[in-house]
Amino acid sequence: PRARDTGIVVGLFQPGPLNAITDVAGVTVGHVTLRRGRALNTGITAVLPHGGNLFQDKVPAGFAVANGFGKFMGSTQVIELGELETPVMMTNTLSVPEAAAGAVEWTLAQPGNEEVRSVNAVVGETNDGFLNDIRARRVAKDHAKAAIATAKGGAVPEGAVGAGTGTVAFGFKGGIGTASRKLTPQYGGYTVGVLVQSNYGGSLTIAGVPVDKALGRESFSETTRTSADGSVILVIATDAPLSDRNLARLADRSFIGIGRTGSPISNGSGDYAVAFSTHPDVRRTPAKRSAPAAATELPNDLMSPLFQAVTEAAEEAVLNSMFAATRTEGHRGTIEALPVDKVVPLVGGRPR
Amino acid sequence: PRARDTGIVVGLFQPGPLNAITDVAGVTVGHVTLRRGRALNTGITAVLPHGGNLFQDKVPAGFAVANGFGKFMGSTQVIELGELETPVMMTNTLSVPEAAAGAVEWTLAQPGNEEVRSVNAVVGETNDGFLNDIRARRVAKDHAKAAIATAKGGAVPEGAVGAGTGTVAFGFKGGIGTASRKLTPQYGGYTVGVLVQSNYGGSLTIAGVPVDKALGRESFSETTRTSADGSVILVIATDAPLSDRNLARLADRSFIGIGRTGSPISNGSGDYAVAFSTHPDVRRTPAKRSAPAAATELPNDLMSPLFQAVTEAAEEAVLNSMFAATRTEGHRGTIEALPVDKVVPLVGGRPR
Amino acid sequence: PRARDTGIVVGLFQPGPLNAITDVAGVTVGHVTLRRGRALNTGITAVLPHGGNLFQDKVPAGFAVANGFGKFMGSTQVIELGELETPVMMTNTLSVPEAAAGAVEWTLAQPGNEEVRSVNAVVGETNDGFLNDIRARRVAKDHAKAAIATAKGGAVPEGAVGAGTGTVAFGFKGGIGTASRKLTPQYGGYTVGVLVQSNYGGSLTIAGVPVDKALGRESFSETTRTSADGSVILVIATDAPLSDRNLARLADRSFIGIGRTGSPISNGSGDYAVAFSTHPDVRRTPAKRSAPAAATELPNDLMSPLFQAVTEAAEEAVLNSMFAATRTEGHRGTIEALPVDKVVPLVGGRPR
Amino acid sequence: PRARDTGIVVGLFQPGPLNAITDVAGVTVGHVTLRRGRALNTGITAVLPHGGNLFQDKVPAGFAVANGFGKFMGSTQVIELGELETPVMMTNTLSVPEAAAGAVEWTLAQPGNEEVRSVNAVVGETNDGFLNDIRARRVAKDHAKAAIATAKGGAVPEGAVGAGTGTVAFGFKGGIGTASRKLTPQYGGYTVGVLVQSNYGGSLTIAGVPVDKALGRESFSETTRTSADGSVILVIATDAPLSDRNLARLADRSFIGIGRTGSPISNGSGDYAVAFSTHPDVRRTPAKRSAPAAATELPNDLMSPLFQAVTEAAEEAVLNSMFAATRTEGHRGTIEALPVDKVVPLVGGRPR
Repeated sequence: PRARDTGIVVGLFQPGPLNAITDVAGVTVGHVTLRRGRALNTGITAVLPHGGNLFQDKVPAGFAVANGFGKFMGSTQVIELGELETPVMMTNTLSVPEAAAGAVEWTLAQPGNEEVRSVNAVVGETNDGFLNDIRARRVAKDHAKAAIATAKGGAVPEGAVGAGTGTVAFGFKGGIGTASRKLTPQYGGYTVGVLVQSNYGGSLTIAGVPVDKALGRESFSETTRTSADGSVILVIATDAPLSDRNLARLADRSFIGIGRTGSPISNGSGDYAVAFSTHPDVRRTPAKRSAPAAATELPNDLMSPLFQAVTEAAEEAVLNSMFAATRTEGHRGTIEALPVDKVVPLVGGRPR
Repeated sequence: PRARDTGIVVGLFQPGPLNAITDVAGVTVGHVTLRRGRALNTGITAVLPHGGNLFQDKVPAGFAVANGFGKFMGSTQVIELGELETPVMMTNTLSVPEAAAGAVEWTLAQPGNEEVRSVNAVVGETNDGFLNDIRARRVAKDHAKAAIATAKGGAVPEGAVGAGTGTVAFGFKGGIGTASRKLTPQYGGYTVGVLVQSNYGGSLTIAGVPVDKALGRESFSETTRTSADGSVILVIATDAPLSDRNLARLADRSFIGIGRTGSPISNGSGDYAVAFSTHPDVRRTPAKRSAPAAATELPNDLMSPLFQAVTEAAEEAVLNSMFAATRTEGHRGTIEALPVDKVVPLVGGRPR
Repeated sequence: PRARDTGIVVGLFQPGPLNAITDVAGVTVGHVTLRRGRALNTGITAVLPHGGNLFQDKVPAGFAVANGFGKFMGSTQVIELGELETPVMMTNTLSVPEAAAGAVEWTLAQPGNEEVRSVNAVVGETNDGFLNDIRARRVAKDHAKAAIATAKGGAVPEGAVGAGTGTVAFGFKGGIGTASRKLTPQYGGYTVGVLVQSNYGGSLTIAGVPVDKALGRESFSETTRTSADGSVILVIATDAPLSDRNLARLADRSFIGIGRTGSPISNGSGDYAVAFSTHPDVRRTPAKRSAPAAATELPNDLMSPLFQAVTEAAEEAVLNSMFAATRTEGHRGTIEALPVDKVVPLVGGRPR
Repeated sequence: PRARDTGIVVGLFQPGPLNAITDVAGVTVGHVTLRRGRALNTGITAVLPHGGNLFQDKVPAGFAVANGFGKFMGSTQVIELGELETPVMMTNTLSVPEAAAGAVEWTLAQPGNEEVRSVNAVVGETNDGFLNDIRARRVAKDHAKAAIATAKGGAVPEGAVGAGTGTVAFGFKGGIGTASRKLTPQYGGYTVGVLVQSNYGGSLTIAGVPVDKALGRESFSETTRTSADGSVILVIATDAPLSDRNLARLADRSFIGIGRTGSPISNGSGDYAVAFSTHPDVRRTPAKRSAPAAATELPNDLMSPLFQAVTEAAEEAVLNSMFAATRTEGHRGTIEALPVDKVVPLVGGRPR
């Protein structure tokens, strides 16, 4: 079950129909899962902001780092130009080059890109080196292309899938998770969707309830021991017409949600968020990139509801990643799934 | 009572003896409270890293912004040089100039500073314009000097005092609060202390329990309406021998604690943290500033326990600020104290 | 004479009619000069983006730091919100509080601001402590108000005036200088204007010609000795409709012009730039700040001519500040004016 | 000839014996040049901070961006942890993945790294898509490994070699260049070395002399037309014992040197610098990374001579890259070498 199905509710706002990043119209997600024996437990996940030519019709984007012990690729151009021109890729730490190669080649091959000679691949990663023989570097650029090519809307597979196949969160199996919030008309009616690749640690807290002790874990030393190389990547989509500056602010807030799950943003974690807007008004088409162009943007003063929304969706996306992830026997040991049946009663009795 | 006295426990680690920023040896705190009639509810608070000549014996320092809608002064020099050379001052939004003037004149007047011609005053503020007639600008530079001059160690007055006299948090009376954590010997035995000036909003969450609904508040719109100009300032002290880069990282993590109290880091908030180390090895004395000098620093790999500590102390410091703050009739209305008697049972029954 | 009047030409583009920041329509500049005996040589300069209510009708703005050893105030809010709501003030290092107090009180007193309770004063400074008895702190908030109140368009007084009264550049008298560039219609016809408060050092280079040796100076140690506390503040105005991100990029490039005058951006320098756009389309009026609003912005791909323009105008503004500044007997000694008659032949013979 | 051999002198300080980055003891440089027919003109260059195990014995490092329109990889971890654990690689824009894959695999394969599961590859690039059929992506990870494996000290091959094989600077052939400065004992006697991959444009200025017009070029539109995708990567080495913060400041100043060659840091440029210290005291060995450790660091107040040095070495390194580069017939046309015989007389007659 997803977290919400068990009665666990995070935050004040309502999710969209799918409670997924794909509630933002046009956004698609593709997974390639690589699993064989105990040694291979990894994969690639791609998020596409829209179904057109991403390089030609760029989307405004913002980037945020909570802790930079990671190999996130493509950040400086997102910051400088405030835009995204490729799918956002996620994979394991040592396979960033292959994910990038795939994204570059896919972009070069898109119709209309025959003259393109510069592509900013955006790739996040977390370290699945406990369950996956990461040094073997089994992810290939064709896996990246396949993740992009098979991306689709609708419900998003969660848990031990794609880039989440081999990840570990709070000592339990982590993975891919997603959630969304839809603002009421009073706040503009916009949707914010988040997709996470969860691989980090801390003192597991679910909807405010610290569950580590009840689950028999001595939390701090336990998690710092097992997840020193952990990390989290967050991809954030919204249909609100935001400037790149306000998208970077939105990305920043997503870490508040991560903090609420129990992370202190530890030293060994690579915690990154990238946010983009799908609103057609702010899309950077060739016409808009070559002459002064009008765009309707949401002002600063209307941002707070979106900030609230992203903190909630980020937190719930992490829960969903863990609720969906399954026990995995891997390269250096076995990681159990979160015992949802034990967790729900611990959390359920709380006042709301 | 302070939060911990009511049985509310935040986090995994233990506080220091005072559960205050003054648990870090040498740190002192001074308050000047300005209160008269309904119109005047404001003040100044000063935090001094040590009792010597702060300008001559600078301390390494780091700075972090969660949301920059505020008038924090002195940040660029802290970032560039990685050091602090004055007390950290807090006051109201429109009185930053007077707090700065006081800090500058106090520094110029210290024995040994007769040739000093450049002083970087560091001043944070939050907006107490609901309880205080802030436009009257009643804080004077002499108040700032008095706050510095009367700073002392030991237990720190909390609540509606000093720079917290007129602040509002989550729709209740906010103010000054403090807390600390002392690491076990396994993690180096260091102390991290936090002092906050709380004046922000969100969906009030105490030790993970959302209490807004139970207290009859419709949280999101309520708090965004009443605390649009809210903010939080955090001053963080540690005796761990940290580099300025690791102090900036420590400052960053304090906002995870703020997020756990229910803040989405809203648009109208000015949320700043400054962290310094009191360890003598990293102190920047005239000798160390004029020739290559050895200093012992904690490496990156040992930072995570300090990160955990600061998230906990920041969260608890906010609770302490609210538990201590008292009902205040002010310029534009009255703000009630947090109903501690109602809150404690809501929180107390949860599993820990 | 101004630099250009002597035949010294910097860069490729043409200046506007005044070769001043006031070539950007609506921008005004005000100076208050404080000079008495040898001890008092200081002042305040104010730059106003437009003649309306600056707080209500904010302008988009960007900020850049080349070296942060300075006391620039107001930067974090400019960065977070991408806007400016007050005049940009310049003064001496220890008088930032008074300049800020004046800007705050002036703003509070403007018609239409009766309900304003939060004002982000933006104040730059450089250290005039050689010619001015800076520790005496003789600048008052009323001087700041007077600088704002007397701001006007047209030709801008340069040299030892306003905030430049006591500054020193490259061991010669520095001060206020300004210059502008007007792009050809091919590049949009926009104007970029720069005003500087010059107080920094290095190896003086005029239009590419290093003149230190010819002027009998052993440049590096000379300037690091006399101008350790030097700094430069740059205020940049443009009528191009720029986003705050592109204004920050524009501000960044101004330091390329500073570098070309011979500065290595030394450790003791506080080198800051703030850039704003006066274009009505991007102005943040109450209407635009309260609902999604359309604005026409220049795309990234059209920025390079503006970048070229700002590097040229910044360099020429520094030259103008020195060409206009006059010999000054001050608190701790006398600073000679740049010997323009010697300098011009040194520079004039070069191929262009 | 190198620039200095023709009598062209940049700056105030003296170069080291080789006038190269390899004047910093222990630093080595390796090139792999890929050239075949007109279509293939590209390559890889690697810079190694020392000859030991770079991953185990990390060096403190700083990073700077002047304009982020580029695909620099590895920056966030350098910023967060302040260290470098791999060779610095340079290649073409679309081959960053292969350069990274090579650096990762080389690191995994080093003796002593058998348990390494996380590697932060640091890769810069510029776009050689005019002379090289960049879309063909002919650089392979084995080329990267070969560049690392063949790195050596001594004189560094410059011009159209390695990552500079296909680059264009100011409309002339660019490439790899290097230079150094050795401070006098008065300033500590440290060496600063710079290596550049030059591929950017502007109004070519040599030792302060604008030479574009004399060479028959209408500079601004010419260069923006031909080098829109240009960029520059700077690698900076020093034996001064610097903190990571001061290394980042050093990296920042290198762009002042770039500005002096005539660049306005245009929109289409990806301009990045990474600086590291080879001093054994600041090296982050396993012992120093696992316990509090003493290190001797240069204080802020002694940084200015190093800042001066890096501006000079960066400028001269660019000149060396162009003086050495040879006429190249490539994929989309031919790029002439800088006509050194014409340039030298233009520059030579200037007063020094």
